[in-house]
Amino acid sequence: MAEPLRIALAGLGTVGAGVIRLIESNGALIAQRAGRPIEIVAVCARDRSKDRGVDLSRFEWEDDMTALAGRDDVDVVVELVGGSDGPALALARNALKGGKGLVTANKAMIAHHGMELAELAEGAQVPLKYEAAVAGGIPVVKGMREGAAANRIERIYGILNGTCNYILSQMEDSGRDFGEVLKEAQELGYAEADPTFDIEGIDAAHKLAILASIAFGARIDFNAVEVAGISRVLAADIAQAEALGYVIRLIGLADCETLEDGTRRLFQRVQPYLVSRDHPLATVDGPTNAVVCEGNYSGRLLFEGAGAGDGPTASAVVADLIDIARGDRSAPFSIPVGLLQSLEPAETGHRRNRTYLRFTVADRPGVLAEITAAMRDAKVSIESLIQQGRPEEGGEVFVVMVTHGGPESGVTKALELLEGSPSLTDAPLVMRLLG
Amino acid sequence: MAEPLRIALAGLGTVGAGVIRLIESNGALIAQRAGRPIEIVAVCARDRSKDRGVDLSRFEWEDDMTALAGRDDVDVVVELVGGSDGPALALARNALKGGKGLVTANKAMIAHHGMELAELAEGAQVPLKYEAAVAGGIPVVKGMREGAAANRIERIYGILNGTCNYILSQMEDSGRDFGEVLKEAQELGYAEADPTFDIEGIDAAHKLAILASIAFGARIDFNAVEVAGISRVLAADIAQAEALGYVIRLIGLADCETLEDGTRRLFQRVQPYLVSRDHPLATVDGPTNAVVCEGNYSGRLLFEGAGAGDGPTASAVVADLIDIARGDRSAPFSIPVGLLQSLEPAETGHRRNRTYLRFTVADRPGVLAEITAAMRDAKVSIESLIQQGRPEEGGEVFVVMVTHGGPESGVTKALELLEGSPSLTDAPLVMRLLG
Repeated sequence: MAEPLRIALAGLGTVGAGVIRLIESNGALIAQRAGRPIEIVAVCARDRSKDRGVDLSRFEWEDDMTALAGRDDVDVVVELVGGSDGPALALARNALKGGKGLVTANKAMIAHHGMELAELAEGAQVPLKYEAAVAGGIPVVKGMREGAAANRIERIYGILNGTCNYILSQMEDSGRDFGEVLKEAQELGYAEADPTFDIEGIDAAHKLAILASIAFGARIDFNAVEVAGISRVLAADIAQAEALGYVIRLIGLADCETLEDGTRRLFQRVQPYLVSRDHPLATVDGPTNAVVCEGNYSGRLLFEGAGAGDGPTASAVVADLIDIARGDRSAPFSIPVGLLQSLEPAETGHRRNRTYLRFTVADRPGVLAEITAAMRDAKVSIESLIQQGRPEEGGEVFVVMVTHGGPESGVTKALELLEGSPSLTDAPLVMRLLG
Repeated sequence: MAEPLRIALAGLGTVGAGVIRLIESNGALIAQRAGRPIEIVAVCARDRSKDRGVDLSRFEWEDDMTALAGRDDVDVVVELVGGSDGPALALARNALKGGKGLVTANKAMIAHHGMELAELAEGAQVPLKYEAAVAGGIPVVKGMREGAAANRIERIYGILNGTCNYILSQMEDSGRDFGEVLKEAQELGYAEADPTFDIEGIDAAHKLAILASIAFGARIDFNAVEVAGISRVLAADIAQAEALGYVIRLIGLADCETLEDGTRRLFQRVQPYLVSRDHPLATVDGPTNAVVCEGNYSGRLLFEGAGAGDGPTASAVVADLIDIARGDRSAPFSIPVGLLQSLEPAETGHRRNRTYLRFTVADRPGVLAEITAAMRDAKVSIESLIQQGRPEEGGEVFVVMVTHGGPESGVTKALELLEGSPSLTDAPLVMRLLG
């Protein structure tokens, strides 16, 4: 059998320990499939003494990540340190500049610095792979880079954050409100102590920006992703959606439009959507992720599985290592980074959608007239409207409506007309309908 | 840009024409992603004069497939002729022996001759790829060979035949019986004039045998697949399943069990199953395919998409070509064919399942007692039982039961006890429950 692929592993959290366990338990199988063994040579983490449930004695220990990346006996560095900048980025740069391959699960780093790292990798002719950075154990980067490679991809969308999906499906099942379910999710380990990145959609936006680059041959533009999280979704919204035949899911969606002069514009949005109950994403419950890729020949492809966790993430990391061991040297973002286009963000006003709007209003005469007048003046056509009192008398009232399909600019204008109105006691919640 | 990958295309049916259209319309994109153009050099089909809606004038025409495979100006032969033996197999052998790569959509040929062809390919160090042979446009061969490559795969199962799935979901939606829906499916082009391969499960068995080889490192053993089709499923079965919270789907399922002495045994079954309504496969409707792969680290991965059609199939064929153009030379069945094990078929008697049984019986006293006595004597525990008369008085009656979980040998024994009983006017229908 050929020479082993020699690995240096930085970061020994749950995923790092998972990678070690996986390579140990499935080592023989991996060597057969990869054509050669995959061998961890050296590891590095902050605290050497911590018990991680795996035997580290067979690996060289490095206290310093620069030294780890500089080792002569290493072919590929696996970066599981995390964080978009700082030590992870320094390690990644050092590894690639030193002519070593890089495998990472770090979505924030790839979303912010993927183009620079791809340039380094292509310059040094070494692999850069990041399957585990998007949707955990699901081979969706591979599915899009390779499985759908023959297609002009028309749209990608999916459930990219397991924490949000867990919270939303729990709210759905139990009728409880966001805060309560979040607290429980934190206790169960489905949400971080500081859940901001997850619940505000940032994590999903990182993943969407990465996938959009592959799908549309565009330079990653994380800052252009329009992001809204799920913290403003109420149990009442979920109940209303259900009554209409929908579930609420945090969806990342991207497509690419071509203007009349041939210029392309990139649309990227992360937002809670109402997903029709008969859509395959509607049955994706709990911490599961699912991504749809619509190709002009393949039609709709769906990839679904565990979006996080040490096992699934380790599975994706080691799949990348097997690809490298097998000789894969294709461009990190499917086409050489120099050919990726810088695309301006798409305008959204002309995009046609059915839209769910929830207004929280004072319970007094004339409020409904005010809202419906704004809709009329903005030429937004209302498909259904429900006014629902809150339990306490004289308190706030919800006015929920779903519009007919129409341009987003109409809804935007209506909301502008209502801005500052004393009738509205909270900012309206706006969600689009999918499927 | 590097030299083009030069293709000879044999077979110009709908898929062949689809491949030509795809390479024409997405050619620039494909060249970027593959790192070089993919160029069709020569084509071959039975009838040169037939109008296929594509311009063939730019390609060399060969009347003879042997000549096609022998051309010096070709790197890869794409076989879209079909049929497990005959001209397709001769072409495949010629191509590989002549040192050319082979891409095929031919599931029957791979299921019957995949091992021989893989030996030829590995011997000649040329690629053999067959993504389009399994589940149309879904990159499930890739997903399993590469995406899940780090895992010991514990089970694979899925909806592998679009015709059956279309028929079953139509029966479900309309309440009509099999024959009527089949006829409509034939008129709509979802079923062949001779639908035997599809409706009797042969086509699904081809695909399952191929996937099982990749998943379990086993030599393909198509003849060992236990196969039952859907032609005996009645509208009444679908209604009963629905009442119990299930839908009926033709499922291919394979796993690998390890005996005490370490010997592995391969289980492969294609059969209509009752699929729980909350299982992701239950919402797979129409001609869609979906495959689940359960890895020991990845957990459950689901791949879903169009299982047939010229566009999706062409998408898979060209994805294989792009992989080849990018330099992929990994083993056709993930590990070298010489390492694939010949596995004996698993015994099934000890497998534990809940089972749906439908008896068609004469409407006279004592029949129910006879059936339930057989169940008792075979130690099969009944979870629920419904007796349902057919409309006409004194006619046949359905007795439908679902067993508690128990070994399959129990159900087999009960059916043996009932064999030849004059009370049964038709062979019982046996379906297992999934999920």
